[in-house]
Amino acid sequence: MDQTMGKTTETSIEADPKLPVIWMTRDFAATPEQLFRAHTDPAVFARWAGPDAMNTRIERWDATTGGSWRYVTERDGEEYAFHGCFHEVRPDRIVQTFTFEGHPDGVALETLWFEDLGDGRTRLRAQSLVDSFKGRDAWLRSGMEVGVDQGYAKLDRMIADGTV
Amino acid sequence: MDQTMGKTTETSIEADPKLPVIWMTRDFAATPEQLFRAHTDPAVFARWAGPDAMNTRIERWDATTGGSWRYVTERDGEEYAFHGCFHEVRPDRIVQTFTFEGHPDGVALETLWFEDLGDGRTRLRAQSLVDSFKGRDAWLRSGMEVGVDQGYAKLDRMIADGTV
Repeated sequence: MDQTMGKTTETSIEADPKLPVIWMTRDFAATPEQLFRAHTDPAVFARWAGPDAMNTRIERWDATTGGSWRYVTERDGEEYAFHGCFHEVRPDRIVQTFTFEGHPDGVALETLWFEDLGDGRTRLRAQSLVDSFKGRDAWLRSGMEVGVDQGYAKLDRMIADGTV
Repeated sequence: MDQTMGKTTETSIEADPKLPVIWMTRDFAATPEQLFRAHTDPAVFARWAGPDAMNTRIERWDATTGGSWRYVTERDGEEYAFHGCFHEVRPDRIVQTFTFEGHPDGVALETLWFEDLGDGRTRLRAQSLVDSFKGRDAWLRSGMEVGVDQGYAKLDRMIADGTV
């Protein structure tokens, strides 16, 4: 994973040693407000999230505290759906649930923090908590880093060209 | 805790040894449909949830997949508020988030299962997952079992008298 990651991004993806948690950290040349918008505006989110080859169609989206979301990604006619609810949406932190409908009983509790580094840079920290180490490790082995990597690279380009 | 619990209920409350999880199990003389209603109908829920001395006021309640909830409990003029979202609501399982607003950054992911035991009896299993053992153990030391115990005893009476 480190080799793949190192080529194109500085995203850190780590398994917590004591908790069924995945940690991700990545810096962006954007303000916290821009990163917040990238994660809450459905038209923006759909353009960067996920691997390059996938198209994302938002089916439900209310990025407010107590709202919910669902989207479908598509590649070569194959569809993959995801849904969750927004526990809390505030400028410095988003807490939401996440289920891949291919494994409908699995649920992650995700927390995103937008940490202002100054000079127009922001650190995104993300924590994904599940209820078993087996489930956590299956996510890590699923190739998730490719989607993370390519998605954040798309977001970098959208920040650079003024889209976000 | 066992001594307090043993007096009036058979609720089992356990800390998972490996995960930041609290497990609760309790049997009711009710069908899965009755227990589902007790957890999704706001007028019913407000009557049994929490300690005897507290009154519960529902402020927001949409017990459907992607819905959300907020309630305020009151005792002697002191108010305590809680909120969350419903990740999934289906007849055999409810997944929701939970925050006590006195600790606004703390979030639990709660899963309830209604397991039909036959003969009009149902086992409620509840899993509460948080992101640290310290947070989990603080909940266990908070006196939560009193509210659980008294709440389920109220629900027993509402089942027995035909309210649920």
